[in-house]
Amino acid sequence: MGSMPVGRLHKGNINPNVIAAKYAVRGELAVKAEEYRVKLEQAEEGLPFDKVIFANIGNPQQLDQKPITFFRQVLSLLEYPPLLEKEEALKSVFGYNQDVIDRAKHLLKDILSVGAYSQSPGSPIVRRSVAAFIERRDGFPADPSHIYLSAGASSGVNTLLSVLCAGHDSGVLVPIPQYPLYTATLAVLNARCVPYYLHEEKNWGTDVEAIRASVAKAKEEGTDVRAIVIINPGNPTGSCLTSESIKHVIDFAVEENLVIIADEVYQTNVFKGEFTSFKKRLRELQKESPMTYNHVELASLHSVSKGMVGECGHRGGYFELVGFHADVEEQIYKFISVMLCPPVIGQCLVELMVNPPKKGDPSYELYQQEYKAIAAGLHQRALALYEAFKRMEGVECQEPHGSMYLFPSITLPPKAVAAAEAAGRHPDEFYALRLLDATGVCIVPGSGFGQKPGTYHFRTTFLAPGTDWVNRIVNFHEKFMKEFK
Amino acid sequence: MGSMPVGRLHKGNINPNVIAAKYAVRGELAVKAEEYRVKLEQAEEGLPFDKVIFANIGNPQQLDQKPITFFRQVLSLLEYPPLLEKEEALKSVFGYNQDVIDRAKHLLKDILSVGAYSQSPGSPIVRRSVAAFIERRDGFPADPSHIYLSAGASSGVNTLLSVLCAGHDSGVLVPIPQYPLYTATLAVLNARCVPYYLHEEKNWGTDVEAIRASVAKAKEEGTDVRAIVIINPGNPTGSCLTSESIKHVIDFAVEENLVIIADEVYQTNVFKGEFTSFKKRLRELQKESPMTYNHVELASLHSVSKGMVGECGHRGGYFELVGFHADVEEQIYKFISVMLCPPVIGQCLVELMVNPPKKGDPSYELYQQEYKAIAAGLHQRALALYEAFKRMEGVECQEPHGSMYLFPSITLPPKAVAAAEAAGRHPDEFYALRLLDATGVCIVPGSGFGQKPGTYHFRTTFLAPGTDWVNRIVNFHEKFMKEFK
Repeated sequence: MGSMPVGRLHKGNINPNVIAAKYAVRGELAVKAEEYRVKLEQAEEGLPFDKVIFANIGNPQQLDQKPITFFRQVLSLLEYPPLLEKEEALKSVFGYNQDVIDRAKHLLKDILSVGAYSQSPGSPIVRRSVAAFIERRDGFPADPSHIYLSAGASSGVNTLLSVLCAGHDSGVLVPIPQYPLYTATLAVLNARCVPYYLHEEKNWGTDVEAIRASVAKAKEEGTDVRAIVIINPGNPTGSCLTSESIKHVIDFAVEENLVIIADEVYQTNVFKGEFTSFKKRLRELQKESPMTYNHVELASLHSVSKGMVGECGHRGGYFELVGFHADVEEQIYKFISVMLCPPVIGQCLVELMVNPPKKGDPSYELYQQEYKAIAAGLHQRALALYEAFKRMEGVECQEPHGSMYLFPSITLPPKAVAAAEAAGRHPDEFYALRLLDATGVCIVPGSGFGQKPGTYHFRTTFLAPGTDWVNRIVNFHEKFMKEFK
Repeated sequence: MGSMPVGRLHKGNINPNVIAAKYAVRGELAVKAEEYRVKLEQAEEGLPFDKVIFANIGNPQQLDQKPITFFRQVLSLLEYPPLLEKEEALKSVFGYNQDVIDRAKHLLKDILSVGAYSQSPGSPIVRRSVAAFIERRDGFPADPSHIYLSAGASSGVNTLLSVLCAGHDSGVLVPIPQYPLYTATLAVLNARCVPYYLHEEKNWGTDVEAIRASVAKAKEEGTDVRAIVIINPGNPTGSCLTSESIKHVIDFAVEENLVIIADEVYQTNVFKGEFTSFKKRLRELQKESPMTYNHVELASLHSVSKGMVGECGHRGGYFELVGFHADVEEQIYKFISVMLCPPVIGQCLVELMVNPPKKGDPSYELYQQEYKAIAAGLHQRALALYEAFKRMEGVECQEPHGSMYLFPSITLPPKAVAAAEAAGRHPDEFYALRLLDATGVCIVPGSGFGQKPGTYHFRTTFLAPGTDWVNRIVNFHEKFMKEFK
């Protein structure tokens, strides 16, 4: 573009905060992988693989995962309600159950049309269902008026950070490694990311002492630390916090007067241990010791994108606020109202996710069967990948507990590090690019999520079907290690 | 909330830019109207009306407008593709045409599942269709790689302003009256709104001399004016610019080196005159005089929310960039990639909107019939409302040309202005509140959009069916004028 005249806008005068933001999950590697995919589609020759494997992004339905029948049957009726005029044919010809039909009617009564704007925080019927779900999950009441539907959890995070950061002194504690949405959004807001390292050797758990040290350092630098982000189950780490760990984080938030942002989008992706919500743990502590815990401000997020739902293209999600000042909620309401409302069909999918068929409902058995098969498949693939990583030289991987990712560390030979430096690349980025070029497998280098200096990692989803691609990684790795020995 | 202890976050320490933002379309009046609606639903007594009329927001399907059959049939198949396994039954029992089935298959081949993330700028198949549409509309080629799908046009505006504003010196020219998305977003970005008044007496046209004066003033104040926003057809004004007016704006942008942001979401809502896109006019000028016009940077926006589509709940839209530097487009790509992708079903609806059934296709006739009926209904109601306003004392309204709104001026008696001041209200807000309390009709006061000092207006949609609610306004107005005589 060297010969192009500089226009009104160029890299030198647009928003520097946008330029400063980094987002590797859909960065250079992903773009290159897509170019390879198009080349293969157009039957171009010369690539050493016949298929691109997108292991860079948690996009279940791009790969193997089928949508859950009950959800999609209801959505089809919401999109074209005249189908409801022929219930018998729906049932006999297309196998729709009565509960599918009833649910669609129930939702339509409230939302009128999925083509109409809802209220900005979401349709009342959906917010009520979310509250009922949280109540069942946690054993403590939830109030629909503090539940805000969002376009995926990402847009909820954007709302929360936009309102709670007040300029370049504001800081938010973010786990490292982290999902880069957080650092990117803080960069755009010109606020400070206060990183705290997760404890890799303890299965990527939170380490309150490490958090305390980060806060002390940030305060020295004049940062007004306002909030702590916890991703549980972890992305990219796959960890799952115990009830005890959660208490430690809440205690620390009380000590430092921090808002807690609990990103719980992987709450159903748990193989080992058990998911405990921050809300539940907080309510338990408030019951035991109201004076200490009653003023905690907690925002917790969930979405339809992950879990056995896997409907990320529908952009559905919500966040719940606990203990927020009414004035602050009023500003949150105004902020989201500028964007009018989250996609209404996505809102309906949130309703279906939190209120699936119950035992005795006609769609219950198929729902259970589909749900369990997806869960089992994810677990199997996680284990297969984990086993493969255990066999790879210089690769160490924590046992998978949850989410959709593994985040192994790789000990790269000094020659590989030198070659990466010569190419102007992070060593793990160099590794990931070589892997993509050689095998068509697209992963995300650890540097995209943050890692302790001198350590290298990569994140891979375990969504892609089959084991062939895992073998491609294993074989590539062997050759790579030999090449740079 | 006076007795509540101040928490970590309160109005005094959260993002001051969010607090500064104003967004009246969904503000106090809308909230109050919704409260009245719920009261009526619960059969509470004591309200002097039996129905709330939401004339405050362009939400066609909340009111009378039916979705277009072809669009929704295709969407139902995208949501539940197993329906496609029984084509014969779809046709014979549910009346789906072959082109509906073919389109669904065509889209699914590319997107795989509406539950999967697409590429961040949108699915390639949709971007190609949008480019083909622009090409047909304007008679000039369009390039899919410069088309970005968005979650409604609002999110596109947010992207564009976020990237092009670089801090508190950056200014963007915004028409007054305007749709408050622009001022709210600029406030959140801590950038400056440079207002320019539209010419009410000339049917709310753009007045380049007024724009020039605004720019001169802004420059004196140290503002780096970067872009000009044009809403055509106008919101809230209903105006429709001539090809000549558009040239004047483009010439001014060239003179002042401004990026043009053309908000063209009402491009099909035109009763009088003819819509000309900024892109078309720019290409014509570039053909005539390339040296002068070749470097113009233009972003134009469109959406599925308005027009005869009216599918705002689906949050579909796009923007096209012309003449933007590749470096800047790269930053735009990164910015949107943090939010992953726009809702995929909304993207598909964009595809259907820009590529509707053609003459000879089985769904063509019904599509045409539905489309024309909606257009005619909107025109009739606009005229009925316009006629009613002509009969009202002190009310003046420009002839409706397009969009979904009328924006009459009201000359309020000095006693009413005094009463409003005593109540701590803008006079037009006072009027709108009284109207809502007395009749259940919810409009937006002109102060929510901006207006010349000392003038008062209100915006009303003409979407609500029937004429009863228009009479309610007429009767209220008569009583109001008498009361404050």
